[in-house]
Amino acid sequence: MPVPAAFADIAARVRNWGRWGPDDEVGTLNLVDSEARRRAAASVVSGRAFALGLPLSQSEGIQSGLVPGRDNPSRTMIHVNDPLSPDPEWICSSEDKVTMATQCATHWDALAHVSYGGMLYNGYPASSVTEAGAARCGIHRLGAVLSRGVLLDVARALGRDVLEPGHPISPGDLDAACELGRVAIEPGDIVLVRTGQMVHLAPERRDLIAYTWPSPGLTIETAEWFHTHDVAAVATDTLVFEVFPSPHEDLYLPVHLLHLVEMGLTQGQNFVLDPLAEDCADDGRYTFLLDATPLRLTDALGTPLNPVAVK
Amino acid sequence: MPVPAAFADIAARVRNWGRWGPDDEVGTLNLVDSEARRRAAASVVSGRAFALGLPLSQSEGIQSGLVPGRDNPSRTMIHVNDPLSPDPEWICSSEDKVTMATQCATHWDALAHVSYGGMLYNGYPASSVTEAGAARCGIHRLGAVLSRGVLLDVARALGRDVLEPGHPISPGDLDAACELGRVAIEPGDIVLVRTGQMVHLAPERRDLIAYTWPSPGLTIETAEWFHTHDVAAVATDTLVFEVFPSPHEDLYLPVHLLHLVEMGLTQGQNFVLDPLAEDCADDGRYTFLLDATPLRLTDALGTPLNPVAVK
Amino acid sequence: MPVPAAFADIAARVRNWGRWGPDDEVGTLNLVDSEARRRAAASVVSGRAFALGLPLSQSEGIQSGLVPGRDNPSRTMIHVNDPLSPDPEWICSSEDKVTMATQCATHWDALAHVSYGGMLYNGYPASSVTEAGAARCGIHRLGAVLSRGVLLDVARALGRDVLEPGHPISPGDLDAACELGRVAIEPGDIVLVRTGQMVHLAPERRDLIAYTWPSPGLTIETAEWFHTHDVAAVATDTLVFEVFPSPHEDLYLPVHLLHLVEMGLTQGQNFVLDPLAEDCADDGRYTFLLDATPLRLTDALGTPLNPVAVK
Amino acid sequence: MPVPAAFADIAARVRNWGRWGPDDEVGTLNLVDSEARRRAAASVVSGRAFALGLPLSQSEGIQSGLVPGRDNPSRTMIHVNDPLSPDPEWICSSEDKVTMATQCATHWDALAHVSYGGMLYNGYPASSVTEAGAARCGIHRLGAVLSRGVLLDVARALGRDVLEPGHPISPGDLDAACELGRVAIEPGDIVLVRTGQMVHLAPERRDLIAYTWPSPGLTIETAEWFHTHDVAAVATDTLVFEVFPSPHEDLYLPVHLLHLVEMGLTQGQNFVLDPLAEDCADDGRYTFLLDATPLRLTDALGTPLNPVAVK
Repeated sequence: MPVPAAFADIAARVRNWGRWGPDDEVGTLNLVDSEARRRAAASVVSGRAFALGLPLSQSEGIQSGLVPGRDNPSRTMIHVNDPLSPDPEWICSSEDKVTMATQCATHWDALAHVSYGGMLYNGYPASSVTEAGAARCGIHRLGAVLSRGVLLDVARALGRDVLEPGHPISPGDLDAACELGRVAIEPGDIVLVRTGQMVHLAPERRDLIAYTWPSPGLTIETAEWFHTHDVAAVATDTLVFEVFPSPHEDLYLPVHLLHLVEMGLTQGQNFVLDPLAEDCADDGRYTFLLDATPLRLTDALGTPLNPVAVK
Repeated sequence: MPVPAAFADIAARVRNWGRWGPDDEVGTLNLVDSEARRRAAASVVSGRAFALGLPLSQSEGIQSGLVPGRDNPSRTMIHVNDPLSPDPEWICSSEDKVTMATQCATHWDALAHVSYGGMLYNGYPASSVTEAGAARCGIHRLGAVLSRGVLLDVARALGRDVLEPGHPISPGDLDAACELGRVAIEPGDIVLVRTGQMVHLAPERRDLIAYTWPSPGLTIETAEWFHTHDVAAVATDTLVFEVFPSPHEDLYLPVHLLHLVEMGLTQGQNFVLDPLAEDCADDGRYTFLLDATPLRLTDALGTPLNPVAVK
Repeated sequence: MPVPAAFADIAARVRNWGRWGPDDEVGTLNLVDSEARRRAAASVVSGRAFALGLPLSQSEGIQSGLVPGRDNPSRTMIHVNDPLSPDPEWICSSEDKVTMATQCATHWDALAHVSYGGMLYNGYPASSVTEAGAARCGIHRLGAVLSRGVLLDVARALGRDVLEPGHPISPGDLDAACELGRVAIEPGDIVLVRTGQMVHLAPERRDLIAYTWPSPGLTIETAEWFHTHDVAAVATDTLVFEVFPSPHEDLYLPVHLLHLVEMGLTQGQNFVLDPLAEDCADDGRYTFLLDATPLRLTDALGTPLNPVAVK
Repeated sequence: MPVPAAFADIAARVRNWGRWGPDDEVGTLNLVDSEARRRAAASVVSGRAFALGLPLSQSEGIQSGLVPGRDNPSRTMIHVNDPLSPDPEWICSSEDKVTMATQCATHWDALAHVSYGGMLYNGYPASSVTEAGAARCGIHRLGAVLSRGVLLDVARALGRDVLEPGHPISPGDLDAACELGRVAIEPGDIVLVRTGQMVHLAPERRDLIAYTWPSPGLTIETAEWFHTHDVAAVATDTLVFEVFPSPHEDLYLPVHLLHLVEMGLTQGQNFVLDPLAEDCADDGRYTFLLDATPLRLTDALGTPLNPVAVK
């Protein structure tokens, strides 16, 4: 397939294949080293904490059917007050199990989530993903994902509660958010980009379609910005992550292709950023310790998350 | 049912019902405040990180059937290289879903996991757990669980690789581990107690029965020690958590009853502690930042975890 | 005396008299609280340390006689290898004493250093300074002076090794240095302003006159900038601190008047900033823990210093 | 001169000559590296600060004449409200100078302060100290002295407000203080040993002789303890530092000889420890960031200090 020139140019510039050796499966998370984790700890001043995960339940789920099979969480009971003692009312135990698509709510995509031209990140063949899962670049390869987090509150930087539907975020928008937060990205930082899109999930006006589509989001141009700044991972408060519908008619999820395939940049969706953003605006500090470590799901294509930011 | 006097005495002394108000559902995690989180950040010196979760897959699962229904994780594919573009080999996407008992591997128990005398922690009725889940004291109530962590390496303190099968850990054992680590517990700390039991999970000698039973573990006496030291949460590297079989023939999981019901102490099992313990022995530092935040599983009885320690 | 309108306007806007009560003697250092000190500790990442004091000796002194009586340090021996034991060559001890003007080298000015219109900071009478020293606003009032430090490298921000002789630093210059350092001033920060002027003290081209005069330096306009940003204290790498000669012919040390008398802003001179600036440029981090605590010289008008920055 | 065997044995065991190369002049302060400074920053939790210097003035001086020539500080005015403007009452300036023995109050001894057998630390000849000062091991060699500080409150550990006059501190006393503080010394820590002796300096009962002599203090046995624990520097709240009179009749200041000459251990006297000790007892935390950087007095035998502890 012919690839649009604008995309091909950026793809060539951001490609990290081989940068961390031929056997690498974690990409830009190699940038998180001991110094980055010390920098994370050093950004804790007030001690206030924010959990950034959406609730996980059938009724609170955000999947509306756009992606077939990506079902909302379903929890069922294994035991309900089952007696442990001869007297059935004395000592009892309850237990449950859960089923969910690994990308149904707040999550990281594994690098193996998408391929193009038959290739995953670092040149692994797309065929290494089978019914058994991702033999390469599965989510369990990441280990601890803890670094300094930086909130880029693009909505606030542009003077809005929520970006326009379909607003394509530009590198200039990211610079404006850096300026608002008076923050300089350092190699190994994890960037959280706020669009304000979760206004559509507020209980009183919950509208899953409006949340999903059309959505403001990241662009092929911001991929290059993340590359230049040596960002370790990126997450947003949207479902599709990138601007949707795409302005590139003949490409499909082009930002996914650049991030996951070319750069090996782990990307996250549906992060709850509004309370954190409120606190950052209050005290003017947009950096924090962020832990968003995946569940250790062997060979999985994604992972549910409840990331934590401590300021 | 008559309760043994030794148990009843301890139960009366450690009971926290009402301590944080009649509506409290998180118990001793109330002890984690902004200062505790600052203390956590302040314990980061080297920046080395350790992920403490077991792998989550069918074949690596540790459930041997002892607890009926507590199934190992099962992951299946939703999409395998499904084309997103008209050319079916150009742009493809893969995705999966997972089913698991919330307590099948490394996990926290929710306070609602057990009841006795018809009551949960803080006096909530056991009947508040139904087929819909835990209306009270569900795991999602906890929010961020991040504090200073302290490793109490009881095995090493007693000069062993692994404690004797069925060894009941005593308060003196915990004191010895404090002494080994030259550490003083502070209110709000999260304590990880190492028995060495995971030696039975080493690939070359994997023995799920030996891992499960008989097991060294915590005791009703250590419950009081945790109460006296105002510990916020406790986890071990064993499956049953408490010493098993129990030395108290007419009680069932008595440590669970004290921790979960009386104290409101969140407890965790199957934490991978050996690599962390190795590093602590190397540098003599047994304190660290610990994040073990639950998935936000609404009304759930437990949560899978991949806790992270940063030293 | 008539005061120029530009000065009077700024003086009225920056005056802090009464802001911290009628008995206050430390001025803007009230802005350094426990949170500011935690922020200081939180800015330590690499652990590299820089001592910012000039050497203290007669031959290395920087006083050229411009200020009569402000003599360079003079150290003399009290004992040289004096025997402590009957055998005069066995155990010996040596000891010395030092005489120096408190402002001869790297130092803080006490707020009592200057007065105008018969008044010190907070409205204390100038007559409270006598032959016995400063009964009000003496240097010993300050206690610990430790906060987050911020290097504003104005020279580098303007693309120069050293600012032009007599360059008056503008608020825009400070903004440019903030931009260079990607840093936002927070209330209670201590700001170090680098002009590059110490190039004149390099051994191979040591020129005390060129170091002293004409000198780039701070201005009445930057005083307002420090006020707006709630800076706790300010130091430079120059002898006079403010631009010299002054552009205001009929005022004498007008920046001293604004800082010390109107604002109660402790100001420092002759801080060695070049090695620190080099490190900041290398790693892009312009914030650090700064300790510049005075000697506890009762009722003194200044204090020698060897400030320490840890990054 | 014959040396007592007990002393000679310890001297042989603690000698650090050559340990940091033949040209070393700072001894055990080599143990303070970037990791130690990060550990210092990481010990800051509450942000409370304590300045540990005695007041510097003639009338508050603590020298009673025991050491001839070690005079208390004397400050005199250079200018008192000298006019800067034609109107002599408009703009005025005041300035002063100070003379003091470098060891008259709170201070570090330089390693060159004592010699024995004709040698300084690391084998430099005693004759390198002349009327010009210490050509080797002068105080200015130390640079930044900032590390984690540990308070060993021996008085409190032994259940006393102040140790008995002449109490010789034993290694067991230091262990008891570690136990009280639940703290483990790490290589590069700076240890502050509290005897409570400053009770004699309280204004209402100021007694310089009782403060000086007889004094509890450190011993040749504790020198070995500091060596074993790789302590970087040690200070006390006494004038003589070591127990005085000495239990060793035929040795003179034997602890000085071990610390300064054999070990190259920088030692400090007259540190104000009571308010810090009160705070440590209150919150149970005996570790802190400590900055006790010398003035940069070229070739000097000691330095006045106002050390700062931040908890």
